Amino acid sequence: MKKYQLMAPGPTPVPPNVLLAMAQPIIHHRTPEYEALTVEVRAGLERLFQTSHDVIAMASSGTGAMEAAVANTLSAGDTVLVLKAGKFGERCLEICAAYGVKTIALEAPFGNIVPAARFAQALKENPGVRAVLMQHSESSTAVLHDVKGIAAVTRGTDKILIVDAVSSLGIADLQMDAWGVDIVISGSQKGLMLPPGLSFCAVSEKAWGHVKTSRLPKYYFDLQAERKWVEKKEPRFTPAVSIMLGLREVLRMIEAEGLAQVFQRHERLARATRSGVEALGLELFAKANPSPALTAVVSPKGIDSEKILATYSTSHNITIAGGQGEMKGQVFRLGHMGYVSDFDVLTALAALEQVLHELGHPVDFGASLGAAQKVFVERG
Amino acid sequence: MKKYQLMAPGPTPVPPNVLLAMAQPIIHHRTPEYEALTVEVRAGLERLFQTSHDVIAMASSGTGAMEAAVANTLSAGDTVLVLKAGKFGERCLEICAAYGVKTIALEAPFGNIVPAARFAQALKENPGVRAVLMQHSESSTAVLHDVKGIAAVTRGTDKILIVDAVSSLGIADLQMDAWGVDIVISGSQKGLMLPPGLSFCAVSEKAWGHVKTSRLPKYYFDLQAERKWVEKKEPRFTPAVSIMLGLREVLRMIEAEGLAQVFQRHERLARATRSGVEALGLELFAKANPSPALTAVVSPKGIDSEKILATYSTSHNITIAGGQGEMKGQVFRLGHMGYVSDFDVLTALAALEQVLHELGHPVDFGASLGAAQKVFVERG
Repeated sequence: MKKYQLMAPGPTPVPPNVLLAMAQPIIHHRTPEYEALTVEVRAGLERLFQTSHDVIAMASSGTGAMEAAVANTLSAGDTVLVLKAGKFGERCLEICAAYGVKTIALEAPFGNIVPAARFAQALKENPGVRAVLMQHSESSTAVLHDVKGIAAVTRGTDKILIVDAVSSLGIADLQMDAWGVDIVISGSQKGLMLPPGLSFCAVSEKAWGHVKTSRLPKYYFDLQAERKWVEKKEPRFTPAVSIMLGLREVLRMIEAEGLAQVFQRHERLARATRSGVEALGLELFAKANPSPALTAVVSPKGIDSEKILATYSTSHNITIAGGQGEMKGQVFRLGHMGYVSDFDVLTALAALEQVLHELGHPVDFGASLGAAQKVFVERG
Repeated sequence: MKKYQLMAPGPTPVPPNVLLAMAQPIIHHRTPEYEALTVEVRAGLERLFQTSHDVIAMASSGTGAMEAAVANTLSAGDTVLVLKAGKFGERCLEICAAYGVKTIALEAPFGNIVPAARFAQALKENPGVRAVLMQHSESSTAVLHDVKGIAAVTRGTDKILIVDAVSSLGIADLQMDAWGVDIVISGSQKGLMLPPGLSFCAVSEKAWGHVKTSRLPKYYFDLQAERKWVEKKEPRFTPAVSIMLGLREVLRMIEAEGLAQVFQRHERLARATRSGVEALGLELFAKANPSPALTAVVSPKGIDSEKILATYSTSHNITIAGGQGEMKGQVFRLGHMGYVSDFDVLTALAALEQVLHELGHPVDFGASLGAAQKVFVERG
């Protein structure tokens, strides 16, 4: 009997009460019941996004929401700055390329951040830039990028800041309105503890201004059309009803725990994980500002990280994730976002000790667990 | 105690075993378990679509799949024929307009079909046309359009036929390969008895040829990119994992019942519904070829159909649907697709008798039920 445990950086475990809420008989989306759901969910999303602007929910993965942000605010031939320090930064470049949007990549070696000053410099050198695109938590490198600093650069200019918060919403503090972020996109399957299939796009008034002049084609992801339906309190197209039912539950859970406490919990789980990993003599992949959502670890010399994933799975029935793209084989990633407790982190670390041992790597048994425990008892 | 019953033309009721399958703890989408799921589901979808071509599943509503069909096979300035005899035909025109694709609408008054001969004539007069777009079952009018006849017109030409089978897949016979349909799109929440949020796009070799020359921008809905991942047996982006788990269950159920039997059951439920409605002296909205998926009924003189929906809901806790667009207030629609039995149809009709009575319309109680029963006992 080996309990299945999902410890990958998304999708993340869905709480049992949420699974049961979604297992209720399906309801219709043009009924008073669904309107009540919509109203409650919308208010909860605004608090979660820390915004008074529209948060639009769509049936797609997070990539669809990023495409929506590009296709709705830009035109072919526009130039944008893209933070490129991981796989999801690369995906932003691909989306722009697909739409004929010119890109200037501000790069850092994977595992590093790009300082806000480089954005300021690039905007000075390229005054025609229309937008800046970046990840908050870059899931491929486990680095948390400096949204606040970069927002301070775009704020008050005519450039909009588009932030991919897929693996930071409900995990790391992101004050959309207070910091002056123009578009925040996210998905359901990370900090929101839901199945994948629902995405979000929060849009500031400044960004709506860009939307008015955008000439790129769009229909399913047409944010202006979506906005009209938001006012009607009805979905434009058939929504992902079951995930929306789950979302209501999840927002109530986050509300009960308190957003500040949710951020603190993630920070604590992340510190314990890093502490445990380092106690085993392993190296973190993030060289700066590690994400509270997940921890990327450099595979010990001579061990292909794909073997680590495979052993987690076959010996312990635990799913973790490997390296993406050029990091494949070199990195493994432990998720600790959403429905995760102290003891889940200890399980992940205990399994890591056993996995490394099984693969012939010397292990000081219990070292990672002791290190994590010390973090856990530091504060309540 | 009034049991909730969902009798709208989508979303449709989800069978309890499917709800439970989807309520299992979530699994990761890059694991051997998910690959096995993908392989089984893909084979089942090919049988369901009656095709040997690729069936691509995406996290979106059916409208996203229709947009994918347009954005992947056409270029700005291309001309297409669009069957316009209902709300979803109008949506096809809107999608084309959003992408700068020129349209020639072949219209019929709502409730009617457009004969295949008019498509043959239009193609003769407009030899440059690149594609023909149509609904199979037009959910707004409850008419089943002539896919076989129109496919016979496009077959063997360089024009592709794109069919919206959102409310006909697993409901009405649609022989993609045998009839020569080039693209069939569909969604999860109708005949497939699943929550909304998953869409499908089946693509013939001839349509892939169009894809190669298409110059419209796309990323999330890029079918060529999706096809490469289909070969890897992995999803391109994070998929709607929970609905995919439900899909496996549903495909097993359809397989066990037999596709021919599934079509017959829907035809029988539809005939019983129409027979019952007519026995109450009401008029069907479909003037030709009524759909086996749903029945649209003209509201009795002097009764706003919105009142009929409202009374179904408040007096009986049953959700049905009203008229869409210009049909609002004049039509109500009863769904009988997916997880629906004889006795569900009798419930819908019995409630209709009570609703009409409550609204002051004279009713011969039991008339609709007797008429439906006669259909049910006609054959096993």
